[in-house]
Amino acid sequence: MSHKQLKLVTIGGGSSYTPELIEGYIKRKDELPIKEIWLVDIKAGQEKLEIVGAMAKRMVKAAGLDWEIHLTLDRREALKDADFVSTQFRVGLLNARIKDERIPGSYGMLGQETNGAGGIFKAFRTVPVILDIVADMKELCPNAWLINFTNPSGMITEAIKTYGKWDKVIGLCNVPVNAMMKEPELINTTLDHLTYRFAGIDHFHWHRVFDDTGREVTMDIINAIQKGDAALPKNIFNVNFFPEQLEYMRLLPCAYHRYYYREEEMLNHSLEEFAGIGTRAQQVKKIEHELFELYKDPKLDYKPKQLSERGGAYYSDAACEAMTSIYNDKKTHMVVSTLNNGTVPDLPADHVVEVSAQIGAAGAIPFTFGPFQPAERGWLQLMKNMELCTVEAAVTGNYGLALQAFTMNPMIKSGSTAKRILDELLIAHKNFLPQFTDKIKQLEKDGVTVKDDIARTLI
Amino acid sequence: MSHKQLKLVTIGGGSSYTPELIEGYIKRKDELPIKEIWLVDIKAGQEKLEIVGAMAKRMVKAAGLDWEIHLTLDRREALKDADFVSTQFRVGLLNARIKDERIPGSYGMLGQETNGAGGIFKAFRTVPVILDIVADMKELCPNAWLINFTNPSGMITEAIKTYGKWDKVIGLCNVPVNAMMKEPELINTTLDHLTYRFAGIDHFHWHRVFDDTGREVTMDIINAIQKGDAALPKNIFNVNFFPEQLEYMRLLPCAYHRYYYREEEMLNHSLEEFAGIGTRAQQVKKIEHELFELYKDPKLDYKPKQLSERGGAYYSDAACEAMTSIYNDKKTHMVVSTLNNGTVPDLPADHVVEVSAQIGAAGAIPFTFGPFQPAERGWLQLMKNMELCTVEAAVTGNYGLALQAFTMNPMIKSGSTAKRILDELLIAHKNFLPQFTDKIKQLEKDGVTVKDDIARTLI
Amino acid sequence: MSHKQLKLVTIGGGSSYTPELIEGYIKRKDELPIKEIWLVDIKAGQEKLEIVGAMAKRMVKAAGLDWEIHLTLDRREALKDADFVSTQFRVGLLNARIKDERIPGSYGMLGQETNGAGGIFKAFRTVPVILDIVADMKELCPNAWLINFTNPSGMITEAIKTYGKWDKVIGLCNVPVNAMMKEPELINTTLDHLTYRFAGIDHFHWHRVFDDTGREVTMDIINAIQKGDAALPKNIFNVNFFPEQLEYMRLLPCAYHRYYYREEEMLNHSLEEFAGIGTRAQQVKKIEHELFELYKDPKLDYKPKQLSERGGAYYSDAACEAMTSIYNDKKTHMVVSTLNNGTVPDLPADHVVEVSAQIGAAGAIPFTFGPFQPAERGWLQLMKNMELCTVEAAVTGNYGLALQAFTMNPMIKSGSTAKRILDELLIAHKNFLPQFTDKIKQLEKDGVTVKDDIARTLI
Amino acid sequence: MSHKQLKLVTIGGGSSYTPELIEGYIKRKDELPIKEIWLVDIKAGQEKLEIVGAMAKRMVKAAGLDWEIHLTLDRREALKDADFVSTQFRVGLLNARIKDERIPGSYGMLGQETNGAGGIFKAFRTVPVILDIVADMKELCPNAWLINFTNPSGMITEAIKTYGKWDKVIGLCNVPVNAMMKEPELINTTLDHLTYRFAGIDHFHWHRVFDDTGREVTMDIINAIQKGDAALPKNIFNVNFFPEQLEYMRLLPCAYHRYYYREEEMLNHSLEEFAGIGTRAQQVKKIEHELFELYKDPKLDYKPKQLSERGGAYYSDAACEAMTSIYNDKKTHMVVSTLNNGTVPDLPADHVVEVSAQIGAAGAIPFTFGPFQPAERGWLQLMKNMELCTVEAAVTGNYGLALQAFTMNPMIKSGSTAKRILDELLIAHKNFLPQFTDKIKQLEKDGVTVKDDIARTLI
Repeated sequence: MSHKQLKLVTIGGGSSYTPELIEGYIKRKDELPIKEIWLVDIKAGQEKLEIVGAMAKRMVKAAGLDWEIHLTLDRREALKDADFVSTQFRVGLLNARIKDERIPGSYGMLGQETNGAGGIFKAFRTVPVILDIVADMKELCPNAWLINFTNPSGMITEAIKTYGKWDKVIGLCNVPVNAMMKEPELINTTLDHLTYRFAGIDHFHWHRVFDDTGREVTMDIINAIQKGDAALPKNIFNVNFFPEQLEYMRLLPCAYHRYYYREEEMLNHSLEEFAGIGTRAQQVKKIEHELFELYKDPKLDYKPKQLSERGGAYYSDAACEAMTSIYNDKKTHMVVSTLNNGTVPDLPADHVVEVSAQIGAAGAIPFTFGPFQPAERGWLQLMKNMELCTVEAAVTGNYGLALQAFTMNPMIKSGSTAKRILDELLIAHKNFLPQFTDKIKQLEKDGVTVKDDIARTLI
Repeated sequence: MSHKQLKLVTIGGGSSYTPELIEGYIKRKDELPIKEIWLVDIKAGQEKLEIVGAMAKRMVKAAGLDWEIHLTLDRREALKDADFVSTQFRVGLLNARIKDERIPGSYGMLGQETNGAGGIFKAFRTVPVILDIVADMKELCPNAWLINFTNPSGMITEAIKTYGKWDKVIGLCNVPVNAMMKEPELINTTLDHLTYRFAGIDHFHWHRVFDDTGREVTMDIINAIQKGDAALPKNIFNVNFFPEQLEYMRLLPCAYHRYYYREEEMLNHSLEEFAGIGTRAQQVKKIEHELFELYKDPKLDYKPKQLSERGGAYYSDAACEAMTSIYNDKKTHMVVSTLNNGTVPDLPADHVVEVSAQIGAAGAIPFTFGPFQPAERGWLQLMKNMELCTVEAAVTGNYGLALQAFTMNPMIKSGSTAKRILDELLIAHKNFLPQFTDKIKQLEKDGVTVKDDIARTLI
Repeated sequence: MSHKQLKLVTIGGGSSYTPELIEGYIKRKDELPIKEIWLVDIKAGQEKLEIVGAMAKRMVKAAGLDWEIHLTLDRREALKDADFVSTQFRVGLLNARIKDERIPGSYGMLGQETNGAGGIFKAFRTVPVILDIVADMKELCPNAWLINFTNPSGMITEAIKTYGKWDKVIGLCNVPVNAMMKEPELINTTLDHLTYRFAGIDHFHWHRVFDDTGREVTMDIINAIQKGDAALPKNIFNVNFFPEQLEYMRLLPCAYHRYYYREEEMLNHSLEEFAGIGTRAQQVKKIEHELFELYKDPKLDYKPKQLSERGGAYYSDAACEAMTSIYNDKKTHMVVSTLNNGTVPDLPADHVVEVSAQIGAAGAIPFTFGPFQPAERGWLQLMKNMELCTVEAAVTGNYGLALQAFTMNPMIKSGSTAKRILDELLIAHKNFLPQFTDKIKQLEKDGVTVKDDIARTLI
Repeated sequence: MSHKQLKLVTIGGGSSYTPELIEGYIKRKDELPIKEIWLVDIKAGQEKLEIVGAMAKRMVKAAGLDWEIHLTLDRREALKDADFVSTQFRVGLLNARIKDERIPGSYGMLGQETNGAGGIFKAFRTVPVILDIVADMKELCPNAWLINFTNPSGMITEAIKTYGKWDKVIGLCNVPVNAMMKEPELINTTLDHLTYRFAGIDHFHWHRVFDDTGREVTMDIINAIQKGDAALPKNIFNVNFFPEQLEYMRLLPCAYHRYYYREEEMLNHSLEEFAGIGTRAQQVKKIEHELFELYKDPKLDYKPKQLSERGGAYYSDAACEAMTSIYNDKKTHMVVSTLNNGTVPDLPADHVVEVSAQIGAAGAIPFTFGPFQPAERGWLQLMKNMELCTVEAAVTGNYGLALQAFTMNPMIKSGSTAKRILDELLIAHKNFLPQFTDKIKQLEKDGVTVKDDIARTLI
């Protein structure tokens, strides 16, 4: 990076996670010569933007820094000449996630933010918006880096690369960050004594770990995890993997593999919450409300510890670290969504994977992982192709292809109920799915309505 | 083939399908210079062998042929100097299939002969036996062709190629035969006016069809099928595919795709039968009993029409056709399980696929199919890798790998119930699973028993 | 094909090979309901068109057929509503080939029609023309089949598929035809008793052969060929392959492999001809002159035997056979240039290979060949990539890429002489290389001229 | 690495390069807790071993270190419990290289140490010895790392991985080291401000370079090199690449690419030396003699600068750096021969490539490079497959396969002269080619002798 003063832009700046982002910048104040931070949001997010923006200003001031904090609803003004753009927005806000969770749940299927029917619809809503942002960036800041941590992060990065034809993008996820923060202490060491090798796709990857004598410690960590603390993000219900399976695999699954390796228990837990305390998004809505109440406190000028208890913790910090590594050519090891290029030879070379990479001025250079054994290979190939169908359907609005994605998805039992869920989700999210307009009109004409009362009232 | 008189051997000769095989030979008497037909079975099948063997002799005699029919329990005597060996045996007989169906069914999961948990266990029981047969063939008839139609036909052929290292094998299935027999009339033509292109793996393939002007008629057949007759084998419950999905795919799925594309309905139907008239094997047991009663009739010297109503119809005829095509270098189009070699570039070149091939003296030479679109590609890759895990676990008896196969299989909801089903099936089939002996002993020590009463009493 | 009366068009209709084409049609008169045959040529070929066209009319008349023979310089009129278009033109006529041969020869390198520098320049001249033809076809006969036997046939077919985006094309070559006509008698059998399996790219393929008992007879043919008759086209100098090499390969190389496996001897022979009786094109020019003298005879109404002695014999007949097989859905085995799609897994799936295929109404459906051993694999990968560079340079006119193709080509010793040959060829063919206009102007400005007197006078 | 005192072993310890190795250890004395250094050689190298060993002891003493230096002809004693084994031996000593250079040269072909016929024979001689060493290591020091810089380094590493089944090996080459030492100053920067990305195979790789702002500076370096200093090892004749070609490629070729991109000039230079001052090995023999005369000086206790002028400079230092990086888990960027695993997706995943990698306790973890453009892809695929043929022939002694390797090699013009060269080299090296014994005996019986007088007298 040329040693200029930086303009940093965050789309979805009104997010409750913004204090973590600001804290991340402040931690790296000696590495990043920041001039301006632009927090962008949409009309519907204006109130939150103002609350969290005011707090951001307090944090910067408390740190004794002269950074400009701009709050704006004008995305194009913000993007103009930006150096780094990060994205953490949620199309349709938490209400959309509630619908993603409750509509499948109302039919006994998994409702989850990034897996199953909910994950597919989150992609359907987000892809058109991210492609708009990329189009703006081509015009307004063609040399900027796009650091995406909007979920489903892998599919969004895929859309940016494949349909947006934008190469300077790095997709982030906090799941590997969590693993690398929590696992070392399970085997009584620290991260700097270990070599981590991750490979797979977002929310569906595995990793191996080696210590500084070259010994593989993957099984040591597996054994420690199975005994107790699972190094899970806060939003994932803990059920142990089957030890015989891990013993055979000799790979550490990611936290989300629980949905695939213990489908029964994860589904049951999700349906219990659906019928009881409410789905995760309903819970988060409360937590978020409390956070914003905190943020309103004009004396609060640091990130409150309650934020770290959210499932998305460390995402924003990872984004700051990616920017710092690129700017300073730090050649840091990070786990990112980027072009495969052979890193995982079992997947197409020209699509996005989530892998260990060196992050520096030249972007993300992955570490080769090599072929998987048949079980992991088969899973990965299914999941990546499901992603490709989802992203293409998100771009084209093809209903048959959406149905293909639903049919392939292991969290969705195919058949008439699955098709009903697809149809209800289309109707429920109609305001955010311009690509599916014709189909949605036809469904409405056919009288399809949303069964779940809570979801229906949020349309 | 050298123009010698032929010795044909069928392992599992006591099968109720043997009359179709004999009829198939008689139909081709001018093409196959048969000298001896050896029907081999095991002690437990001796009574059936004698009944169906006597009938085979009557059929041959009625056709005015001087072929020798040998009935034997001595497999090695039969294999000595054989020219063609066909396999149609069922390890553990229909009782094993009943257990494969009822144990998953007793926990609300699909119990089916070749899909889901049942299909995996059918492979677990059959692989050790087929590898024994191959070992005998290497010694006793090293130049013979092995025509396998023992199910799960694709996995068994995989085991023969990969672990048996036996190249002269052709795996057969009646699903494509059914399609090619019934579809042409749906579009008012005949098979000889069409070009069929099948690709995939056994019980999981798709096809395209072209007429003799070069026009693709795949969608015409799809439309006709969706209107009515689905060209299904008798053992598959009919539920239509979603038209929007097929419209997108522009490929004809195979009959068994119903289990994957309409999982909900197929499962419900199977559970209804489980709770009601009994699973398919229970029904078949009755049908088979009736068939053998018919076969006992010393006046019956032709294949009774009741046999054609079985799900396995046309398998034996396909075997005869394969032998005739090889012997006479006929270069016939057949759909067979054989080495991939690039035919389906989405799958490993060195494993078995089920594809359109030319069958002649040089064996099966597949017609290149080319890459699939992402949805079909992802499915195929999952399923083929699930097969590879299953076959390897069948050879090694590795429990962790068996669990991997269960976890991957889309017909099995992963979790503690799935693991319970795996454990019960191990115990239920303990007499036929020497490779899993240690694990089974441990399960018995742990007190695992089979819950379903009917299944338990059949152990 | 719809059973309509056919309009057949041949671009380059004035070729001396046209009588073979007409003979081919006449032989198949019961299979092809021909109404019109259009022979198209350019102004420079008008005289030859008239001579050979008149003879074609005599041949058709002598056969008692009422087919219309149209001779025209108006390609678009000819293409209108055509059913089959065949291409046998030579951009720049034989003089261009003389330059292709003499310019490399004048620097001690191989000058050959389809190999080395000459083959690359034949592609450079032909690709722009064939893409024009395809553009016309899209407009005027979008349902026609294009049967290409213009050399270098594989690269021209590649250009048609990859840059012309035209799928209904079949590329032909007479080298496999020659092999299949001459080899069977070497082992005392006939073609109908054999199964041929060819794979590779045009003028660079190998084959295996099996008899009707399934025994591989590849080595038998190799041994017979090495003893004597090499089943070569007339234009290829015969030098034996090294027996130890073939013994290891256990594959039959194609006739052109001599250039690669016996580079020294083939080069020496070519340089002897260059210095002595003249290069092959110079010889052919005389033969062709004699042929046209014969054709002028108003009594000649059949293909004279002298034509069969040309190197290009059987090309035209193969074209007729391809048309007949498509029209009648004959499902004939032919060796054609077509999309790889996995047939040769060592090469990219989306490019053209030359392989055994079934030719019928649905076009060419290749027979899977499978992976090669390392030596053949390496050669093939080099040569196919050399083709890809050549075709792309032929489309874009990029000089650096042309230099890459020259550098890779095993018949060209890289360095300043090779670059000089490239530059001289550009100048020599300047009238037929619009894509390289700027570079040629610059070379002329730099004073580059053609050294060889004969070649220079032909510019 | 466990923090124990290290035992380092060098096979070929009597090499003139040993002082560089010792200097490399001394430079890293704070990073490597060395206890013992074992220099192993064979009887024929004993004198040199004693000279250079004495000097090594002086160097260590001068550095004030207490390391033990052991000189031995007993390889097994040396290997016992070794931590790192490095190999720098030359089977047949420089005389063998003279034969490798002069025999092809005597027929007008390239004689070079690692390219063409000479490179193939260097592999033929070395592979059996390295596989013996690996067999010893499996028994005597199964946890040691093998650092190979015996040439042809890529093929030797391939043999170690594929036939030796030894995974803890790193193959080194000084060509990338040279590039990284000399190129940065050409663009007025230093290595630590650049990111290098190398990919290919040993002596046949390309690289791209990026600066610390992320800008690609590959073309800047190309332009600087073409102007003057080519950053070449001392043993490579300098002829510039064609600028138009590099402009198209936008990749930096390696120094050895001259042999392939400027074949004519490199051959001419080599033949001039052959006819004049003698081949490179003849020159090196003199240089080496002078070096050993220097080494005899009992006052010399540092690496003389004359050694740095050899073509193999930096090899030994790279070996020390690899050991240090592994031992200290330094995660250094180095360019090494290691398993491909997808790094270069154009080559098989299960074979060796030479690529940028991170070197640490877990070994070499390559940085993914991605697919090449067609020209580089085709070259690489040819060369890697030529390597695979060579290594297999080196293991099996198959003459037909040796002929295949010769035929494929772009530095060898195929034909009867090439075969003659192959035969003479077999005879010339008969004492070091046990795998070819039968063929050599037959050649001798057939009266084949070595034509070149100098080469013949060295047998």
